[in-house]
Amino acid sequence: MVRFECDYSEGALPQILDLMVKTNMEQTPGYGEDVFCEKARELIRRECQAPDADVYFVVGGTQANKVVIQSYLKSYQGVLSAVSGHINVHETGTIEAGGHKVLPLPSTDGKITPRQVKKAVEDHGGDHHCVQPAMVYISNPTEFGTMYTKSELEELRKVCDQLGMPLFLDGARMGYGLASPGNDLTLADYARLCDVFYIGATKAGALFGEAIVICNESMKKDFKYNIKQNGALLAKGRLLGLQFLGLFGNDKPFYSACQNAVDLAIRLKDAMSDLGIKFMYDSPTNQQFPIMPNNVLRQLEDKYSWNVQEKIDRDNTCVRFCTSWATREEDVNNLIADLKKIYNS
Amino acid sequence: MVRFECDYSEGALPQILDLMVKTNMEQTPGYGEDVFCEKARELIRRECQAPDADVYFVVGGTQANKVVIQSYLKSYQGVLSAVSGHINVHETGTIEAGGHKVLPLPSTDGKITPRQVKKAVEDHGGDHHCVQPAMVYISNPTEFGTMYTKSELEELRKVCDQLGMPLFLDGARMGYGLASPGNDLTLADYARLCDVFYIGATKAGALFGEAIVICNESMKKDFKYNIKQNGALLAKGRLLGLQFLGLFGNDKPFYSACQNAVDLAIRLKDAMSDLGIKFMYDSPTNQQFPIMPNNVLRQLEDKYSWNVQEKIDRDNTCVRFCTSWATREEDVNNLIADLKKIYNS
Amino acid sequence: MVRFECDYSEGALPQILDLMVKTNMEQTPGYGEDVFCEKARELIRRECQAPDADVYFVVGGTQANKVVIQSYLKSYQGVLSAVSGHINVHETGTIEAGGHKVLPLPSTDGKITPRQVKKAVEDHGGDHHCVQPAMVYISNPTEFGTMYTKSELEELRKVCDQLGMPLFLDGARMGYGLASPGNDLTLADYARLCDVFYIGATKAGALFGEAIVICNESMKKDFKYNIKQNGALLAKGRLLGLQFLGLFGNDKPFYSACQNAVDLAIRLKDAMSDLGIKFMYDSPTNQQFPIMPNNVLRQLEDKYSWNVQEKIDRDNTCVRFCTSWATREEDVNNLIADLKKIYNS
Amino acid sequence: MVRFECDYSEGALPQILDLMVKTNMEQTPGYGEDVFCEKARELIRRECQAPDADVYFVVGGTQANKVVIQSYLKSYQGVLSAVSGHINVHETGTIEAGGHKVLPLPSTDGKITPRQVKKAVEDHGGDHHCVQPAMVYISNPTEFGTMYTKSELEELRKVCDQLGMPLFLDGARMGYGLASPGNDLTLADYARLCDVFYIGATKAGALFGEAIVICNESMKKDFKYNIKQNGALLAKGRLLGLQFLGLFGNDKPFYSACQNAVDLAIRLKDAMSDLGIKFMYDSPTNQQFPIMPNNVLRQLEDKYSWNVQEKIDRDNTCVRFCTSWATREEDVNNLIADLKKIYNS
Repeated sequence: MVRFECDYSEGALPQILDLMVKTNMEQTPGYGEDVFCEKARELIRRECQAPDADVYFVVGGTQANKVVIQSYLKSYQGVLSAVSGHINVHETGTIEAGGHKVLPLPSTDGKITPRQVKKAVEDHGGDHHCVQPAMVYISNPTEFGTMYTKSELEELRKVCDQLGMPLFLDGARMGYGLASPGNDLTLADYARLCDVFYIGATKAGALFGEAIVICNESMKKDFKYNIKQNGALLAKGRLLGLQFLGLFGNDKPFYSACQNAVDLAIRLKDAMSDLGIKFMYDSPTNQQFPIMPNNVLRQLEDKYSWNVQEKIDRDNTCVRFCTSWATREEDVNNLIADLKKIYNS
Repeated sequence: MVRFECDYSEGALPQILDLMVKTNMEQTPGYGEDVFCEKARELIRRECQAPDADVYFVVGGTQANKVVIQSYLKSYQGVLSAVSGHINVHETGTIEAGGHKVLPLPSTDGKITPRQVKKAVEDHGGDHHCVQPAMVYISNPTEFGTMYTKSELEELRKVCDQLGMPLFLDGARMGYGLASPGNDLTLADYARLCDVFYIGATKAGALFGEAIVICNESMKKDFKYNIKQNGALLAKGRLLGLQFLGLFGNDKPFYSACQNAVDLAIRLKDAMSDLGIKFMYDSPTNQQFPIMPNNVLRQLEDKYSWNVQEKIDRDNTCVRFCTSWATREEDVNNLIADLKKIYNS
Repeated sequence: MVRFECDYSEGALPQILDLMVKTNMEQTPGYGEDVFCEKARELIRRECQAPDADVYFVVGGTQANKVVIQSYLKSYQGVLSAVSGHINVHETGTIEAGGHKVLPLPSTDGKITPRQVKKAVEDHGGDHHCVQPAMVYISNPTEFGTMYTKSELEELRKVCDQLGMPLFLDGARMGYGLASPGNDLTLADYARLCDVFYIGATKAGALFGEAIVICNESMKKDFKYNIKQNGALLAKGRLLGLQFLGLFGNDKPFYSACQNAVDLAIRLKDAMSDLGIKFMYDSPTNQQFPIMPNNVLRQLEDKYSWNVQEKIDRDNTCVRFCTSWATREEDVNNLIADLKKIYNS
Repeated sequence: MVRFECDYSEGALPQILDLMVKTNMEQTPGYGEDVFCEKARELIRRECQAPDADVYFVVGGTQANKVVIQSYLKSYQGVLSAVSGHINVHETGTIEAGGHKVLPLPSTDGKITPRQVKKAVEDHGGDHHCVQPAMVYISNPTEFGTMYTKSELEELRKVCDQLGMPLFLDGARMGYGLASPGNDLTLADYARLCDVFYIGATKAGALFGEAIVICNESMKKDFKYNIKQNGALLAKGRLLGLQFLGLFGNDKPFYSACQNAVDLAIRLKDAMSDLGIKFMYDSPTNQQFPIMPNNVLRQLEDKYSWNVQEKIDRDNTCVRFCTSWATREEDVNNLIADLKKIYNS
């Protein structure tokens, strides 16, 4: 069975495991106050050209989303998100469990517009019977693999400034976005345009880990308390430092690892297109959402795994194929060959 | 200024004030454990033909919604509601503040269908990354003045039974529904078809008060703890008993008071229709949602008040006119006359 | 049965009922934005010599405590309180339900000291594994009827200033404190020394109502959203305005009504002392906590009601007798006479 | 610098790292549904002689505590804990953030008694103004290194049965308890006597991980939803399986690793006692709490690290020295030698 169902089917890049083995018996303080974390934070600040940013590491994306949003919002405030946003549909209501409403904005491609943000405030702002929109959450790449361009992000930044609202960007798959042919953003752009964002490592070659980068001075205070309260303060915090040291240290394998995934995803996408397969979303990143006949899927299911995204009709299903830093070229080539065989028979 | 902006612009029916004055210096225990509450509960059980129901009184609808929903849901469960449901838009996120997600279902008339409930469970049920739909919330009449018929309610009941989900009905304006020409339900029907519902008194002639009627045996336990925790346990609970004694005692003024409102609302609706005014929702109850030219509204605004529901375009606005138990016939007649004058000039 | 079990056994002062009856059919906007509330707020600001204070009305004390504390605290912060504080023991965990820890300080008389506040910060301040003390909650009179003096309150104020922590005072029984022979405080002192406090009306002659007075500028913003979110925004808010108009309008019956209660409580206390009865707490207010033999209590229980505070041993119980604005002199005299009969036989 | 400040200063046992390296590129499903987790669960069930137990893995103890407690308690219920319990003092209020009150019981040695549990229920049970005690939380070894005996645990079990309350045992340092000379319990005993407990790996030789063992049938349902909601569902869940495979696989290094720590702790304790040093708590496990003169500590602080537990007076401090699976014999011997030098000079 070759797995394309997600981008976290394997362990970690060998560089990271090496670092862990090498430093295993060194003694450090706990909770991220060790020298590995310190170095990793420094590397990230440099990569983001954000020397004053605060950087915190947590294990996963749901933790990152919960901690950032809960740290900022007051009890009667909510966070704007595409209706398809991860916080709105795939975190078992963790934001609501923290007392806050996710305010969903309609979206067909996973993205939201400055106009929608403005309208939400016009519609409900100042009415004490309504949850007040107070933060904008976006993910890039989105849950559908689509991407914001730099100019779109700048427009969102502008409306956030006008409304006095922070822009929070979920970068769980940021590495795959940076490697995309559709990308015109850098980590430095993210740091310049977001109040707070995170760089996902779990899906980009590490065992786990998301680096939260806080650029807005007013959001820095007391952040660590919220990490601890949410059970997100790893005792052996050094492990998180080591993940990011591995990714952003020598040769920065973060970039090359993600490039591998995107190249193979595009190869798969192109091959599928050639066979006449349509896509639900036009993704230039490592997630692809083809709409395929169920009888084709049945012929593949013994050799490959994927995710079901949505039933289209009785005979067709939109599925998700993910590549990752660990995807092997030959596996993609085999899948393409198998597809061709089915379609051309 | 004659107020049509809401149905709680005045105090209470004289019968209720009389009761309060008459009993003022009697000593009773606090927290609803007095003889007035006991009698009122008995009257309500009888009216609902539900001798085994538990009845609790709280001051307002937001309290009722919060307490009922929070009492039932586990942390990872959510409540299905029309997107326009009061709990989803007009309670400043009180359900989320209690840790639960409101799962909004699209709706153009304030109502939801059994099919939508089923689909929500099919889409997300059993996936531990998603909030689990676990309760159905409806209001009748809805926030748009529309109504469920008995057969529609029976269909919802059926799907709730199939899915093992309680049906919770917000009856903040139930009295105006019962008095509507479009109504085919009785309090006994509500008690038969809902697991839990409440009878609103605040908008139906009392100073305040909602009577929560719990019909489902399994939802009764320890309900009072949740009332207290939510700050909804009135020290002088007797006052709530007196409101309902007034409404359901001699001659049951609850019904006649609401009839007055609905009759006048229909008179206004018919007159408006005759003038060619269109309505956003086809409401047979005490709330009417005409779409009116802004220049007409400007000519009325010194004499009458109403609520803005939604801007339609640059020149037209959907507004809400409410009548109530306290609305005077002459005020409605004057409004109609003024409208005719404007439209016929 | 004559009730001494609490101070909310009756309805309201006749002045208040009169106001309600007189204004019953006047139309006003809802939610406390009416002219009665406006006037009541003005009276309270004047009485407190706090022309810039924000004043909000809610129905009960648990609501007031929840809304004030939740409005101020961040998620990782807690509120310091005497272990016997109402928020710590008698509100079914409403503060915790809002996500915040009550940090209990040991106390035998219901009061806390500046030294304890300081120590709590010294012990836990700055440690991100611990809830951070961030607000001081006291009640005056306390749950045991004891009182802070002006100089004690000034010392607490000082330590709060040093620590940058607001002082929140629960005045559910403030009226009975002001009427006490042990009192040296005025409403103006409370406004000067507290960041936020409330004046209880429920127990002091009104049907319900607590007036929250916010003196600290930085705590005013968006307070109303929290009121609504907690189900504490009364639709017919005018009723709350009328309660306080009644109490602080002509002749300010708030003061005289409470004076009656305290005078009778002291009379009862003195008579009990003369009979050799000891008290658990030395209360100069309307709550008295005598320790009485169970066999004496048994002889009284058909004619009088009280609360059990605590079992002392097999034969003796500490009970609470409350007087109120509505307590009749003859009932206290009869109780004293009955006690004398029992003790002297 | 040799670190005795905590028991998580190093990485992991080599067996665990080996497993991780060996399996690194194997593909598995995420979220703990992989074969490594399945095997690890099986090993734990066998070790606990609890073939029907549900076993879940989370990364840390705060997560374990939060998920277990939140899964079980209703909104108005609280959890009984020693005042020194980890959930009461060292988790930044995570239980309260989830809406529940920790009900602290006085304790000088970190343990609570069946009598205290009973009294808590007698004092508050059934009063709807009070949080209802509904779960018992204990840790073993406690936060002070002390231990419950088997018979003490059986007595707690008995009272829990009588009161219909689950017993939840925090085993963050369980391994060090099992290795203690004062121990008479086995994992099978824990499984027999607790409704739910967890086996800590973070402090016992793994990189991270706590294995939650649910023995009570009624607590099993839907547990995974709560894990996800709390951000505690590791994407690469296999890593948690591998930690426990390492600890409970060949030769069960869990036991031997912990034995090393306890042996060295006792050696240190005995040596300190011989020098006349007194201890705050009489701990037979890997944490020792000597009370030492500040001037002695100053002479050690360049070579060794420890935690400050509590200031005793101007000249003396209670400190915590921890040994762990990774502590080297020579480091303990050196510390002892240094102490002797200081004390004998």
